[in-house]
Amino acid sequence: MRSRIHSQLLGIQNTPSFSAGKKFQLDDLIEAQQFDREILADIFEVAREMEKVEKNSPGSQVLKGYLMATLFYEPSTRTRLSFESAMKRLGGEVLTTENAREFSSAAKGETLEDTIRTVEGYSDIIVMRHFESGAAKRAAATAEVPVINAGDGPGQHPTQALLDVYTIDREIGKLDGIKVALVGDLANGRTVRSLAYLLAKYQDVKIYFVSPDVVKMKDDIKDYLTSKRVEWEESADLMEVASKCDVLYQTRIQRERFGERIDLYEEARGKYIVDHNVLNVMQNHAVVMHPLPRLDEITVDVDADPRAAYFRQAKNGLYIRMALLKLLLVGW
Amino acid sequence: MRSRIHSQLLGIQNTPSFSAGKKFQLDDLIEAQQFDREILADIFEVAREMEKVEKNSPGSQVLKGYLMATLFYEPSTRTRLSFESAMKRLGGEVLTTENAREFSSAAKGETLEDTIRTVEGYSDIIVMRHFESGAAKRAAATAEVPVINAGDGPGQHPTQALLDVYTIDREIGKLDGIKVALVGDLANGRTVRSLAYLLAKYQDVKIYFVSPDVVKMKDDIKDYLTSKRVEWEESADLMEVASKCDVLYQTRIQRERFGERIDLYEEARGKYIVDHNVLNVMQNHAVVMHPLPRLDEITVDVDADPRAAYFRQAKNGLYIRMALLKLLLVGW
Amino acid sequence: MRSRIHSQLLGIQNTPSFSAGKKFQLDDLIEAQQFDREILADIFEVAREMEKVEKNSPGSQVLKGYLMATLFYEPSTRTRLSFESAMKRLGGEVLTTENAREFSSAAKGETLEDTIRTVEGYSDIIVMRHFESGAAKRAAATAEVPVINAGDGPGQHPTQALLDVYTIDREIGKLDGIKVALVGDLANGRTVRSLAYLLAKYQDVKIYFVSPDVVKMKDDIKDYLTSKRVEWEESADLMEVASKCDVLYQTRIQRERFGERIDLYEEARGKYIVDHNVLNVMQNHAVVMHPLPRLDEITVDVDADPRAAYFRQAKNGLYIRMALLKLLLVGW
Repeated sequence: MRSRIHSQLLGIQNTPSFSAGKKFQLDDLIEAQQFDREILADIFEVAREMEKVEKNSPGSQVLKGYLMATLFYEPSTRTRLSFESAMKRLGGEVLTTENAREFSSAAKGETLEDTIRTVEGYSDIIVMRHFESGAAKRAAATAEVPVINAGDGPGQHPTQALLDVYTIDREIGKLDGIKVALVGDLANGRTVRSLAYLLAKYQDVKIYFVSPDVVKMKDDIKDYLTSKRVEWEESADLMEVASKCDVLYQTRIQRERFGERIDLYEEARGKYIVDHNVLNVMQNHAVVMHPLPRLDEITVDVDADPRAAYFRQAKNGLYIRMALLKLLLVGW
Repeated sequence: MRSRIHSQLLGIQNTPSFSAGKKFQLDDLIEAQQFDREILADIFEVAREMEKVEKNSPGSQVLKGYLMATLFYEPSTRTRLSFESAMKRLGGEVLTTENAREFSSAAKGETLEDTIRTVEGYSDIIVMRHFESGAAKRAAATAEVPVINAGDGPGQHPTQALLDVYTIDREIGKLDGIKVALVGDLANGRTVRSLAYLLAKYQDVKIYFVSPDVVKMKDDIKDYLTSKRVEWEESADLMEVASKCDVLYQTRIQRERFGERIDLYEEARGKYIVDHNVLNVMQNHAVVMHPLPRLDEITVDVDADPRAAYFRQAKNGLYIRMALLKLLLVGW
Repeated sequence: MRSRIHSQLLGIQNTPSFSAGKKFQLDDLIEAQQFDREILADIFEVAREMEKVEKNSPGSQVLKGYLMATLFYEPSTRTRLSFESAMKRLGGEVLTTENAREFSSAAKGETLEDTIRTVEGYSDIIVMRHFESGAAKRAAATAEVPVINAGDGPGQHPTQALLDVYTIDREIGKLDGIKVALVGDLANGRTVRSLAYLLAKYQDVKIYFVSPDVVKMKDDIKDYLTSKRVEWEESADLMEVASKCDVLYQTRIQRERFGERIDLYEEARGKYIVDHNVLNVMQNHAVVMHPLPRLDEITVDVDADPRAAYFRQAKNGLYIRMALLKLLLVGW
């Protein structure tokens, strides 16, 4: 990576808001495997600070002069806006490519590596979304600037995994000893797979899998949890699980996974709905999470309950991304 | 709405350009029915100040640190650029979604309300364009941040209405006692309907309707004007009307309203053209307005005449939007 | 053009980074014919300064308060990002329209001139990409703000031509007396035609044309070079030319030019490949250039050689565009 000298800040009081940075442990953010408990705690600590950044405070200018390129090969407006908001809330600037797949050069047959070499000439950090698993790793191997994976196909979406764990920590106050129910499409859901993987880094975690038969959690994750001595069980009884867990993580049954078997899709999506009946059996301190967008797997009447944490969870994505951009660009 | 503490300014001379704001009367800008004469006068007063904002003056930084999201469910580059320019001319920042209809979440079936709850987490104000009448009202009911309606289908486009009235005031110097000719497609034109509605708030206004038979002004507006004792008349004689009016507001005959009846369209669009012959009978102080884009309903030779006000009118949209963004975000 | 008073700078040390500007010789940047040796030298001198602009230095704020509109009627992400990066690296702001062709108004039949009159109301400079030759000239004739041509169809792409010449100057250290080989698609390549044209302004230049028969350099450029007493020759021997030239400028054979004659395309594209064998015969001080994107006309193993200048060339586009934006907006 290029050496990055910590730049002078142009703050209201002309006082730097942070001292010349100690380098962050990571050069790029590509996959959940990069994280250990210590790095997670570090990122979460910075995210907590980010929650307190006020408009026009010195802290809101820590990335002044830096340029982020959002290189999105498939649209994901939610993720893109979250990153762009994070960059701008820290005083940075953004170059946007929402349809990089039709990037004239890519369409003409340019390799991802050549595109990266060009884009890094224009920017200080690249946030990339791609439709191919492994694309982010290839980009990071080429780029001299930091690369953040904003999702690469069926592969990784590490900032989503981070914001999920951060939200559990913020809402429940701890990660060791928690009980988490993963509900819905566990076979295809990238988020629940990553979440299970990261939870295995904590002590005395218990995971419940509640899903229709056609979209059950796959064996690789179950075996991994077992190897890490994480307790898990499958259940068909959402009410019972709801009454015991700290976190009920609901997911959307993805219609596109069922092809022409609409009958199976309809059967699966109606099976485990989080509504006021489920809320009624949940503990007072417990929360409902969801990666969004939701359809009707959480009914709208749940929204008003303070235990409905999914919009706070989305907002936490902003703080996690602010933290990552700061850490990768200017260090501690 | 969230409380908004007026932030410190980072001006060249470190002097705030305005005092800590008194709150604006409105929380959101959704429809023309929200306006009375007083609010219109207030907005116009701020718009006049906006005309004088100089590059890099303290006034050009009043929205520093604020983020506007342009959530456009259908493209309208002209309106989007006008809002984004307004925000940036006041030191604010912008998150752009030009194809929110294909917003991955919306495409997956997310409700507008859920999208709004997510986007408001990333921004301080939402400017929304939608294809459905009433969408802006729904968004405002959900959002904790201010929402500005940048057009919702056949419904409202209140900032266009504001800039039209503002332009008449700027060009003619008064609103009471003016004579306005509305020409062209009066049946489908959202702008002329809103303009007629707002003009009814002023005294001694006279309105002429000049339109092909197939696109005449509808009875609801005529009845409304009558109930408000606004004088109006229909005329087929553009030259005579042109010689008497202060404002000649021309509009485009919209081809898409005629379906397969291209013959009717061709007949309608050629009927009332504003050209140098029309200009010749107009009074010296009178002006020609048009919401743009124009095709040939105003001939190009009119452009050079000082009474051609339509490009100044477009520019006034910038000042009106600067005023609204300031008022809704930081108050007076 | 509007008079532009040089604005106060908001620099870290509150010292202006440049004195109140002497006006640049050009009002717009439309075509290579506007350049003479003196203007080229002037632009290159400013581009050299731009290479040294540091983050958050006073120099990085020279365009603070200025707004650039990128009005792209066809996508060209590489060129757009380069301009937007240039503007932002100088503290300026950007309004983006990536699909101006579907600009609602253009789709409704608005003329380019009317669109320009509207967009110039929102911005201080317009960077336009268009699919029609001559469009940039029309825009410049209408606009009161400066217009930069970012490519108009088969017409001109003057900033590409500038960055090519600048790169030769930077890499070789001189322009008089250089030997340049133009390789690949010389019939359709806009860049090589412009480059040949600009090189004719320098002394004792020698140009080699190396191309498959079906895409040979056209007579107009050859005649022009002859009239300017520039020595040129055609050769079929890439190795021999490579051993003699200072610059080997490779280009992509454009598949879209061959229609259904894929056989001719395949024959042409495989004929002159720059690989390590070609590198081996090149002089130590010589360089390989390419306008990018490249397919396999330069093999990937060439990239690591210091003589591979094409990514530096792309980066030079940034400095050239920074220089042009500064010169056109605030002068010297």
